[in-house]
Parts: sequence; C-alpha cells; structure tokens
Amino acid sequence: MAPRVSLVTLGVADLERSRRFYEALGWRSTSKPEDGVVFFQSGGMVLALWGREELAKDSMVEDTGGWGGVTLACNLRSAAEVDGFIERARNAGATIPRAGAETFWGGYSGVFIDPDGHPWEVAHNPFWTITDDGDIVLPEPATGG
Amino acid sequence: MAPRVSLVTLGVADLERSRRFYEALGWRSTSKPEDGVVFFQSGGMVLALWGREELAKDSMVEDTGGWGGVTLACNLRSAAEVDGFIERARNAGATIPRAGAETFWGGYSGVFIDPDGHPWEVAHNPFWTITDDGDIVLPEPATGG
Repeated sequence: MAPRVSLVTLGVADLERSRRFYEALGWRSTSKPEDGVVFFQSGGMVLALWGREELAKDSMVEDTGGWGGVTLACNLRSAAEVDGFIERARNAGATIPRAGAETFWGGYSGVFIDPDGHPWEVAHNPFWTITDDGDIVLPEPATGG
Repeated sequence: MAPRVSLVTLGVADLERSRRFYEALGWRSTSKPEDGVVFFQSGGMVLALWGREELAKDSMVEDTGGWGGVTLACNLRSAAEVDGFIERARNAGATIPRAGAETFWGGYSGVFIDPDGHPWEVAHNPFWTITDDGDIVLPEPATGG
C-alpha cells in the first residue's frame, strides 16, 4: 500500500484561539482542553493543533519563524462555495490576502491566513473529482503503489 | 459536511529530486515533468510538490526560509513498520534526527527530514484505528460536522 499523509499538525501560539478558529470553519475537535493538543477528523486523515515550540522540538527542527514552505488547501465544488468559505474564514478572524478569483490553471481560488500565519488556499478545481464523501480523486489514478 | 484538507503542497528547490525521493518512499506521481508540479494521490487527498518560490507567491506569504510550524505524519500499524519506513527514508536520502522509539504519549515514532528540510513523523499510535484502506479514524468520531 502507498504511504499516506495521516496527520498534518499546525504549530500555534494559543491552542484555544486556534481551536475556536477551526471550529468556526466547520471542523469538530474530539479532544479536551486539558489534552494540550487538538485533533480534528478530516476525512481519512487528522488535522492537529499543537504548541509551535513543542512541535518544533518534537519534529527535531529549529523554528526560524514565519512560513516554511508548506501550504494546505481545501477544495470545494464550485466558485460560489469558495467565496462562501473565504467569507466564513474572514468572519472567523482570518486575513484574506487574495479573494476568490479565476486562476492561471483554469480553476478558481482564494487564500486565507489563519491566526498563526498559516496560509490556506480555498479552491475549485474543475479537473479533479470530489466524491460524495469529500475525497479528492486525481484524473489519472496512481497505480502500483 | 465538515471541511477537508484536500491538498498539502510542499515547496521544494528541485522538483525532480523531490519527486524521486517521494517515489522511493512509495508514492506514485500522476503528473509529467513538464507540468512543473508533482501530484501524488494519498488516500482521499493529494500530496503536491511545487517550487517553493512559486508556492510562496501563490500563497501570498513571505518566505522566511527554514521551518514554518507545519509537520506531516505518516501513521503505520506497528513499531516494526515505523522502523522499516524510517530506513526506507534514510536510503532515499533523508536525514534521521530521531530514530524510532517509544514516545511519551504511549506510541512509537521517529522523524525523517526530506531533501528540502520538511520534517515527517513516522508513527504507530495504538489509540487510533487504521482502516483497511489506510484511513485514520480518531477514537471519538467527530459529529455534527
């Protein structure tokens, strides 16, 4: 079986602030405040929030601050859904450096930045399938994995 | 429906080097070199590789270099599988700052760093379910999402 991205952990400065932000976007956490970490079921994987210092230490990296070359995306079924999600993020306290608009690759997307500076692209990609379960399926399925 | 992490994009310095690295770990890309981007189907989501400068520009962020507070994890079914995957990463050219070992939270994990400095935890978490399809299911399923 091909390997998987099972978990994406975002390092945050204020765990409860970030939990409220992501819950306002529609995720539901299954963890308790005293756990010191927040887990959201996100399809077949997990989105987690953890203190950034602890995450850096656990990941054996030096935290240089700022952005480090990773961007997440949430794909939706239409341009209208993208605009709606961007508005939901704005209302939850995100900054919106790029509103929804047509892209050079033939889709539609915008960007929001979460309270810790993590950027998310919100996109409609007409070339990719979104199943009823919300899974993304690339046009040429991977084989041999 | 709750939102999803549909796509995780890693900014890289050399697209073909990174494609080879992730293919050596077992992912299969569906894109061609001339596409300028690499997509791997990864369960119900997509793992992508793209030039870090282009990703920063597209994500509307300033690239401060180094790590930026995001760590990915690949969860496996046993400590032995973790050790095997860490070895596969080492053979593919990863650095291994933390070999597989028991963790404070009752699991087993190690860390590898990819050719661009992106850290991955490779973990066995006995408290989480891995389905036959490779999906992760948290112990208390999210409701109301």
